[in-house]
Amino acid sequence: MPSAPAPSAKRNKSAPLPAPSGYTEEGNASWYGVPFHGRRASNGETYDMYKLTAAHRTLPFETMVRVTNLSNGKSTVVRITDRGPFVDNRIIDLSFAAAQEVASVRPLLGPVRVLVR
Amino acid sequence: MPSAPAPSAKRNKSAPLPAPSGYTEEGNASWYGVPFHGRRASNGETYDMYKLTAAHRTLPFETMVRVTNLSNGKSTVVRITDRGPFVDNRIIDLSFAAAQEVASVRPLLGPVRVLVR
Repeated sequence: MPSAPAPSAKRNKSAPLPAPSGYTEEGNASWYGVPFHGRRASNGETYDMYKLTAAHRTLPFETMVRVTNLSNGKSTVVRITDRGPFVDNRIIDLSFAAAQEVASVRPLLGPVRVLVR
Repeated sequence: MPSAPAPSAKRNKSAPLPAPSGYTEEGNASWYGVPFHGRRASNGETYDMYKLTAAHRTLPFETMVRVTNLSNGKSTVVRITDRGPFVDNRIIDLSFAAAQEVASVRPLLGPVRVLVR
């Protein structure tokens, strides 16, 4: 693998950090699908929502990470190809395929109002 | 529309209730996708995750309901074709298509652990 370019001082969110094997963190995951499918990921490749990839703010591209859903113990391995999530309280943004691998069978959507027409 | 058969005393979760126009309730939604796609829904038709349908515990099949995500104001109209969700604190289980209509762009998955391999 070629060495990474020197990080830009302007945008530290894209600066690669060392990724020692065994490094771990816990926090919320989100996932991204249709609106981004076929668009460019931060590493330059085309985002394919059916591949096992993820966005992370700092881990170098091509880093392989195991993601375990702490609610149900399901896990998968993804390749870091993108930058994000740029929202507080989220540490990783999974592809649709990766989210499907670790999601519960009936994922929670959140609070709604139901109105009979 | 033919009148509904008399409800079975054994399984009141399937008993149709009157659904007055304007009836409303609020609570959590979940959604169901791939594992159920192509399988039979409670109303006898084949579940198609790409159609705007939903499962509700009591509303009669064919009832049209507007579902509004209280987190972002997005809404859609679904047809009740299935029974569920049979989990506390959830009032409606949306098809994949319906969930996509009202979901945030980057839906929350929940807490995970990330481990660099």
